[in-house]
Amino acid sequence: MVPLTDLPQEFSFIHRHFSELAGPAALGLKDDAAVFTPPADRDLVIAADAMVENVHFLPDDPPETIGRKLLRCNLSDLAAMGATPEGWLLTLARPPGLDDAWFTAFCSGLKADQKHFGLSLLGGDTTSTQGPLVLSLTILGSVLRGQAIRRVGARAGDGLWVTGTIGDGALGLRALQGLLPDPSSHLSNRYRLPQPRIGLSLYGLASAAMDVSDGLLQDAGHLARENELAVTLNAAAVPLSDAARACGPGWLDVCLTGGDDYEILFAVSPAHESALMRAGLLETLHGPVAVTRIGYFHEGKVGVQVLDAEGQPMPFTKGGWSHL
Amino acid sequence: MVPLTDLPQEFSFIHRHFSELAGPAALGLKDDAAVFTPPADRDLVIAADAMVENVHFLPDDPPETIGRKLLRCNLSDLAAMGATPEGWLLTLARPPGLDDAWFTAFCSGLKADQKHFGLSLLGGDTTSTQGPLVLSLTILGSVLRGQAIRRVGARAGDGLWVTGTIGDGALGLRALQGLLPDPSSHLSNRYRLPQPRIGLSLYGLASAAMDVSDGLLQDAGHLARENELAVTLNAAAVPLSDAARACGPGWLDVCLTGGDDYEILFAVSPAHESALMRAGLLETLHGPVAVTRIGYFHEGKVGVQVLDAEGQPMPFTKGGWSHL
Repeated sequence: MVPLTDLPQEFSFIHRHFSELAGPAALGLKDDAAVFTPPADRDLVIAADAMVENVHFLPDDPPETIGRKLLRCNLSDLAAMGATPEGWLLTLARPPGLDDAWFTAFCSGLKADQKHFGLSLLGGDTTSTQGPLVLSLTILGSVLRGQAIRRVGARAGDGLWVTGTIGDGALGLRALQGLLPDPSSHLSNRYRLPQPRIGLSLYGLASAAMDVSDGLLQDAGHLARENELAVTLNAAAVPLSDAARACGPGWLDVCLTGGDDYEILFAVSPAHESALMRAGLLETLHGPVAVTRIGYFHEGKVGVQVLDAEGQPMPFTKGGWSHL
Repeated sequence: MVPLTDLPQEFSFIHRHFSELAGPAALGLKDDAAVFTPPADRDLVIAADAMVENVHFLPDDPPETIGRKLLRCNLSDLAAMGATPEGWLLTLARPPGLDDAWFTAFCSGLKADQKHFGLSLLGGDTTSTQGPLVLSLTILGSVLRGQAIRRVGARAGDGLWVTGTIGDGALGLRALQGLLPDPSSHLSNRYRLPQPRIGLSLYGLASAAMDVSDGLLQDAGHLARENELAVTLNAAAVPLSDAARACGPGWLDVCLTGGDDYEILFAVSPAHESALMRAGLLETLHGPVAVTRIGYFHEGKVGVQVLDAEGQPMPFTKGGWSHL
C-alpha cells in the first residue's frame, strides 16, 4: 500500500496556505484546472505580472504587503480598462529560506485584499528554486461587452488627466532606501501598498486610458505613441501629495519618471472636460478620487514635452523606468 | 522632448519576440490587459504552471523545447478537463545570460505549438532576475457549460484507465542524465516534448479524470483520495513503450512513480468498459491514442495498492514525485 495518509509536501503546503483564498471556481485547488463560468454579456479582461525579490520588492519588506502589492498592480491594470475583478491565479518559485510563518503572513495580506476588492483565487502552482522568490499573478476581470477602455482612442485636443497623486511610490522606495525622510510613512506606504482605482467608471468619459506604473512620462509617452500624437504636459499641474511636496523641488524628476504610481492616466475630449473640471473627483470602489488635468494631446512630433510653470520646456534624460 | 524614437528596452524585447505570437484578444500586447470575449455557452477552464531552470528543465535543454514543454504541461491540464485551448499568458524572470538568439529559438517553439494546438498568446510580463530562469504560464480553455471532467466522480466498481504509455518521460530524464541508454531518443524526446491529449472527449464516458504529471502512483492516489475509495492497480497492465521495456524490469519503479507522463488517467463505469475495451483507442486532436485498463476503484482503505503479475502486493516507498 502506498502511504497516502500524509498528503504530499506540495499539496499540504497549498492546502495549508492557499485553500482559504480559493473561491468556488477553484474547485478546492484540487483539480487540474479551475472552471470559471463567465458572466453573461461581458468581456473578460486578463493580465499577468511577475515580481522578483530584489527587483520589485526588498527582502525585508513585510510579507503581508508583498503579495498584496502584486495583486494591486494587477488590479490597477483592470482599473485602467474599466473592469471589475473576478479572480486570480498565482505561481510562486520558492527559495529555501522562506518558512511557514512567512507564507502565513503573505497569505493573510492577500486574503484581506481579495475580500476588499471582491475576487478570489482560482488556482496556481508552487515550485522550489535556488534563486530569489519569483511571484507571477494572472488576474481576470470583466467589463460590459465592448466597453473596455483602451490606450488607443485619444484625439488631438483631448485633455490628459490623472487620478490621485504622482510620485509617492517612487519617493517611498527612496525613503525605504534611506535617501529621503518620510516622517508620516505616507510615501513608503504608497510604495508598498498602491491603491488601484478599481470602480473608476471611465466608459463614455475617457477616450483612452492606462495605468501609471513605469513612470508618468514614460506612460504618457506610451499614450502618445499609441495614438500617434504629441503630448504636452504641464509639470506644475501634476498633482503631488503633501509628503511629496515636502521633499522639495529637487525630487520632481523622480516623481515624474520614477514609476510605481498605479494611478490612471486618461484622455478626455473637450466636450467632457468642463464638467469634469468642476467636479474634480470621480467615484471609485473606495470613494471619490481627485482627478487633475495635467496636459493635452495635439498634432506634432509623437512624444511628450514637459513645460515648467513659465511654459518653458524642461529636459528629462529618461522617459521612465523599465524593469528589464 | 523625452526621446521616444527608441522603444523602451522591455517593450522592444516583447515586440521583437512575442508580438508574432499574439492573437486579436492580446490587443497587440500594447494595452494594460487583454480583452477576451468568452465563447457563448461555455465554461472557461484555467490553470497556471511554473517551471524553474535546474528544477524542471536543464540549462542546456534546447530553448525550442523549454517553452513548448511548459505550454504542453498546461495543455495537458486542459485535456484532463476535456477542454479546448483558447489562449495563454506568459511571465518570465530573465537572467542576464540569455541572449536574443535564445529567445528567438524559445519563441519559435512556442509559435509552432500554439498553431498546432489552436491557441494564441493573450499577454504577459517580462522582468529581470539574478537567479535562474523562471517561466510561469497561465492557460485558458473552454468546455461546453457543465461538461468539464473533474477528479471527483469515480465510484466503486469503476475501472481505472490511462492513455498512451507510462514512464517514458521519467526514463527520458535519466537518459539525458546519462543513467540509461536511449538509442532511439524516444525517451528523451518524450521528456522534452510531452504530447498533451487535447481533443480527448471524455464527457459521458469518464466519471473522473486527471493528467499524470507527478507519477502514476501519486496521481492514482489523488484520484483515490478525492473519491474516498481504494484503487487496485495491476503493474503488468500498465502500458509501457518498447523503449521503456528495453530498459528492463529494474526500471519499473521509475516508470510508475517518476512523473512527466502527461497522459490522462480516468475512471470508467462498468457500463462503458466493454465497448472501450473492444475499441482500445480514443480520438484526440492528433489521431487515436491507445487506452488501457490498469486497475479499478473499490471500497476499502483509501489509497493505491499495486499488484504484480501473480496478484501479489508490490512495495513502493514513494507515491510519486513532488517538485516542492
